[in-house]
Amino acid sequence: MATKLSDLENAINTLVTNFHAASSDNQPTLKVDEFKNLLSSQLPNLVKTDSLGEVLKQMDVKDGEGISFKNFWSLIQNLASAQHGLLSNEKLSKCTCLLL
Amino acid sequence: MATKLSDLENAINTLVTNFHAASSDNQPTLKVDEFKNLLSSQLPNLVKTDSLGEVLKQMDVKDGEGISFKNFWSLIQNLASAQHGLLSNEKLSKCTCLLL
Repeated sequence: MATKLSDLENAINTLVTNFHAASSDNQPTLKVDEFKNLLSSQLPNLVKTDSLGEVLKQMDVKDGEGISFKNFWSLIQNLASAQHGLLSNEKLSKCTCLLL
Repeated sequence: MATKLSDLENAINTLVTNFHAASSDNQPTLKVDEFKNLLSSQLPNLVKTDSLGEVLKQMDVKDGEGISFKNFWSLIQNLASAQHGLLSNEKLSKCTCLLL
């Protein structure tokens, strides 16, 4: 019987499986093109791929290297922290909880 | 018009808003009881609250302090890394992408 997952557990699952699914050959790291496709399809509102070099640098990806889950996670962490900061700074009595 | 979010963007949003919503008085940190409720309701399959002291220690929460988003994020990171490791070690030709 499948375990029923909570919203939060599903969210963690989504983050991991999206990274996992972006590798066409099931490798532990993504090629730059695979990562670019992941950004275009899954983070179109949050990351602009025309500044891909800058994004990779912020994720601490070295020239010629693939993108590891650790690199990917540092991007997610930055996005989540930015979003958390936005919510914390809102002077709303009732949380509207929108990402954008 | 509302921006249509991708699965990944919704996942980030879910992580942030769950932490945010767990504070009854909209504070930047959660009280231990609030955090315990969050674990019970949102991470019942991944974290056992009977070892709450151990969990807090791993999240680098000091005695008597509240749980910050940074503390919370270190837990999410550990859970995601564990899940990523599980997927990477699976010798499956087709990814089943289940969390548990």
